[in-house]
Amino acid sequence: MGNNRQIRLAARPVGEIKPEDWSHVSVDVPRAGDGQFVGRTQLVSLDPAMRGWLDDRPSYLPPVGIDEVMRAGTLVEVVESRHPDYAVGDHVVGTFGVQEYAVSDGKGALKVDKPAATYLGALGMPGMTAYFGLLEVGALKEGETVVVSGAAGAVGSVVGQIAKVKGCRVIGIAGGPEKTALLTEELGFDVGIDYRADGPDGVRKAIRTAAPDGVDVYFDNVGGTILDAALANLAMHGRVVICGAISQYNADQPTPGPSNYLSLLVRRGRMEGFIVFDYAKRYPEAAAELAGWISEGRIVLKEHVVPGSIDDFPATLGMLFRGENVGKLVLDVR
Amino acid sequence: MGNNRQIRLAARPVGEIKPEDWSHVSVDVPRAGDGQFVGRTQLVSLDPAMRGWLDDRPSYLPPVGIDEVMRAGTLVEVVESRHPDYAVGDHVVGTFGVQEYAVSDGKGALKVDKPAATYLGALGMPGMTAYFGLLEVGALKEGETVVVSGAAGAVGSVVGQIAKVKGCRVIGIAGGPEKTALLTEELGFDVGIDYRADGPDGVRKAIRTAAPDGVDVYFDNVGGTILDAALANLAMHGRVVICGAISQYNADQPTPGPSNYLSLLVRRGRMEGFIVFDYAKRYPEAAAELAGWISEGRIVLKEHVVPGSIDDFPATLGMLFRGENVGKLVLDVR
Repeated sequence: MGNNRQIRLAARPVGEIKPEDWSHVSVDVPRAGDGQFVGRTQLVSLDPAMRGWLDDRPSYLPPVGIDEVMRAGTLVEVVESRHPDYAVGDHVVGTFGVQEYAVSDGKGALKVDKPAATYLGALGMPGMTAYFGLLEVGALKEGETVVVSGAAGAVGSVVGQIAKVKGCRVIGIAGGPEKTALLTEELGFDVGIDYRADGPDGVRKAIRTAAPDGVDVYFDNVGGTILDAALANLAMHGRVVICGAISQYNADQPTPGPSNYLSLLVRRGRMEGFIVFDYAKRYPEAAAELAGWISEGRIVLKEHVVPGSIDDFPATLGMLFRGENVGKLVLDVR
Repeated sequence: MGNNRQIRLAARPVGEIKPEDWSHVSVDVPRAGDGQFVGRTQLVSLDPAMRGWLDDRPSYLPPVGIDEVMRAGTLVEVVESRHPDYAVGDHVVGTFGVQEYAVSDGKGALKVDKPAATYLGALGMPGMTAYFGLLEVGALKEGETVVVSGAAGAVGSVVGQIAKVKGCRVIGIAGGPEKTALLTEELGFDVGIDYRADGPDGVRKAIRTAAPDGVDVYFDNVGGTILDAALANLAMHGRVVICGAISQYNADQPTPGPSNYLSLLVRRGRMEGFIVFDYAKRYPEAAAELAGWISEGRIVLKEHVVPGSIDDFPATLGMLFRGENVGKLVLDVR
């Protein structure tokens, strides 16, 4: 077997991630011990949460250590196995890291039927995040009005489509005319708002026009001024689901909080954060329901697959934070 | 009968309320029509919410109109009655406004047994706010750790004492050594934090020291940097109850929101606003329980009664926003 190429964290980024924050190294390909298998990476998932994993502060997962292989969800093909449940040729999804070969004891791993990006997207962490965030944390009810930001992204595009399945009015916020058109023309959203064209004040007004009776559920992927615009339009007993804040992840100083948070008082609203891992026991239930909607054509998958090698990981991650992807961003290293 | 002195809103205040924002006028004392009574004001309640009622923007109540009598909860003694349920000499609590005499059809009024400030405090709107905010919105559980700001105020002092009745660890935040000492020496709080002495960073550290395992419920009366300090110390599944934001009420420009709101995500927390009027149907239930705790000596009432006339209303309201009151602020015009 050849070398195992890895992307490791070389330095903690301050603000935007720079090329020097990564090291590209080659090590020996691992061998499977008793009860282990070795997988060759095929697809690497790129997720907004990755930025948070690089900061040395208390969070829901320990930060990636300096000189450690970068954490990532990947889809691998088993190339060697001494584990009874995994055979050579199997496809497995897990948090195997940004490297060409990974060794695993199968903990937290999931066998899938084919090497499809869907297993990292609508049926992976983004799909689970959309499902539990909208239905459990947001407590969505039929006929309500939903606004989602980052609407053309991996999580947002599924949030909006689940809301449509549930008979809701859905307004998506995205950056640029192409993404905004995608929302209404391909994904079935009722309204698409382009935050780049409209600016913060324009977004507030556009939400008011699209949701004159207020927003029942706002699913926030971005934070910043868009969160404020949504708070200003909250309906009575509205819920704000805090899923992420990609607009703030690369900031190198504390960013201002939502100054309209007092809408929560006037509108008797709720703002709640969650971490999808807390729902891990219920993933199969969500995956079954999502798979059904996908096969019925009620949820369309948007995947943005970039072909390349493991060494292209840093550049591909940059696309995510510049908003250059449409749908779930995946690096295909086959 | 003599003249009826009234305090009316002359102009919408920008930032701090100025004396010119009020007009002091004398009108005829009203007469009771059929099914009405006339009450002579004895006690006037002064509440932080009053600042919000002066602004012309959508809220849970319409703003006080220009040249309208200022809205206020008062306790009156009936001096004339053509209402079957009210007799001359009865004491009645209601939203009768800042004036010496008021006429009422009894809607929203409550007969009480004596002219006691308690009926505007622990058994009035502040007590109801503390009760439902802490137990319903905050979903307080026995043995949890509670932090309350504005802790020496009308709402905060009752919040902390209810939490003690429920077997919780209670940390109060107040301004100045006198108020802070009151919390632990008279009201039974476990810890008192003086935000004036400590500053924003000091408050954050003091909460961490007092609540090393995090804050389960934070009851917020003040907003601003203290809300941020509490968010930074939120326990897993912690709840933030947004009751008010007195630090921001007199600001003449938008104030920054809580920049630590992403703690809600990492800690799976919830931030929720409420308006006590939504619980009006359940006031009797709360009043009965609170009255029981008061008679058992488990809740000590702090009332700050200022003797004077109706014309002293503006100056007395100023005391509230400068934090010069300890406990429920009441103007006694008898």
